[in-house]
Amino acid sequence: MFAQLSGSVTVYEVSPRDGLQNEPKVLPLEAKRRLIDGLVAAGLRHIEVSSFVSPRWVPQLADAVELVQSLAPREGVTFSALCPNATGLERAKLAGLKEIAIFLSASESHNQRNTNKSIQRSLEVFEELIPAARDLGMRVRAYISTVWGCPYEGDVDPRRALEIARELVRWGVYQVSLGDTIGVGTPLQTQRICELFLAEFASEQLALHFHDTRGTALSNVLVGLELGIRTFDASVAGLGGCPYAPGASGNLATEDLVYLLHGMGLETGVDLPALIAAGQLAEQLVGRKLPGKVHQAGLFRPRSSS
Amino acid sequence: MFAQLSGSVTVYEVSPRDGLQNEPKVLPLEAKRRLIDGLVAAGLRHIEVSSFVSPRWVPQLADAVELVQSLAPREGVTFSALCPNATGLERAKLAGLKEIAIFLSASESHNQRNTNKSIQRSLEVFEELIPAARDLGMRVRAYISTVWGCPYEGDVDPRRALEIARELVRWGVYQVSLGDTIGVGTPLQTQRICELFLAEFASEQLALHFHDTRGTALSNVLVGLELGIRTFDASVAGLGGCPYAPGASGNLATEDLVYLLHGMGLETGVDLPALIAAGQLAEQLVGRKLPGKVHQAGLFRPRSSS
Repeated sequence: MFAQLSGSVTVYEVSPRDGLQNEPKVLPLEAKRRLIDGLVAAGLRHIEVSSFVSPRWVPQLADAVELVQSLAPREGVTFSALCPNATGLERAKLAGLKEIAIFLSASESHNQRNTNKSIQRSLEVFEELIPAARDLGMRVRAYISTVWGCPYEGDVDPRRALEIARELVRWGVYQVSLGDTIGVGTPLQTQRICELFLAEFASEQLALHFHDTRGTALSNVLVGLELGIRTFDASVAGLGGCPYAPGASGNLATEDLVYLLHGMGLETGVDLPALIAAGQLAEQLVGRKLPGKVHQAGLFRPRSSS
Repeated sequence: MFAQLSGSVTVYEVSPRDGLQNEPKVLPLEAKRRLIDGLVAAGLRHIEVSSFVSPRWVPQLADAVELVQSLAPREGVTFSALCPNATGLERAKLAGLKEIAIFLSASESHNQRNTNKSIQRSLEVFEELIPAARDLGMRVRAYISTVWGCPYEGDVDPRRALEIARELVRWGVYQVSLGDTIGVGTPLQTQRICELFLAEFASEQLALHFHDTRGTALSNVLVGLELGIRTFDASVAGLGGCPYAPGASGNLATEDLVYLLHGMGLETGVDLPALIAAGQLAEQLVGRKLPGKVHQAGLFRPRSSS
């Protein structure tokens, strides 16, 4: 079953963007830098640090250009940021980024609410944006949200996400991250979605982005692993869980993901105690308890029996 | 992978015992009855309602006999309680129970701390207790704790648990529940443990009892399911999580387990909305937030897009 799993897994850290954009509190640039430094120190090599959407919509990340410019380049570390359009691409270029991420939803209502565009209109924008970014020497990653279900529409046909992914990859996206935005996915559904995509794409073209809202994130990761997927998104300490419902979970916590992966003999390059420290720092910076488990429970150390 | 899974799964509810014995607050008998009524109403058919260990050790469950006597028999519902010794068995008989559960640990230090006996001494007690209970017409279930790791000794050789299980089954235990008491288990370890036991026992002789301390409980359940195990212990809302670390998790929450099982097309006989209500009742009774996720997030209902 799992005994044969080996090799390495890429952990794609999204807390400075996906986490902080959902925090009611706007962190100062210096606090964001400390968080990112902690994540790099823990061995994370792919970190989404901010977003170039309009500061009007996401004031939490209004300092994206200054933040990226303030980050010293680190050997082997890729920083990226969300980029919705040509204006965002200009800012990404100004900031000196080598990778951007685009995003849209597999369901029309969610895409409209989240981006103020139809899916068709989003695709038209990306058809120009992706080659433009590549011409600037950037790699482009894509998020497709609501693949497991839409908060407005309910069930979503995964073939819609597949059609979207097909276009994005054709235009030059190197990897598509499929998102269970509302955290409803269970393993059987995950298996079906993964199999649908793996029939058309190589496993390295796919990533999985689970939310742990109903506790199923790691069981879904397990299915992805069994099917050969080797990139998973996560957010340290589960940063980005709904801040208005303490204890409720959004993003899968990076330390919980890494704990599972290491327990299965898979390599991540991550130092788990340092990652736990980064999770504790994240709690301190946002000033509230975050829902990840391993940063709370700690690694297992036998207590003295005396 | 999972597509072939079908049929039914037995959910063994432990909240009135394993949950409440870890609560600092002692609930009145009437509150316990309300919780048990809620669990029965949700469709749970195996409920461990109390413990006949000495009230000196577990004052929270001192009313075990009165509680059991106060429960009206329900068609198809089995109530059980922990029973450590002959004195406990007398009380179980007085209470009118048809099923008891015995318990010991796979690691010497934990058994000593938890039961004040060596494993050898526990086994000597059970060698007499199991046939005595069966002579009274009772079924006997057994918990083996610390199979995935011991808080005092660290790693535990699962072959020690296997030797213990072999004896208990020989003396008449109908099912052995293997416990990840400290919630350290990951899927690969779970696979190895399950395979070791399944080489010797029928799947219905085994149950798995996971703690979600590090978020891995449901991924471990998934492994058990794939290997054919069909009984899982859980505690509604995760009751029994360490009360001194709010948000920290102990027992796997029953509603999270059932959400996963139903999502995989497996039958449990449980009505999930009613189970969520029981979880909310549990929170109300103990007066604190409990760590289960599905009772917090609720089932998914599309929001109006208007």
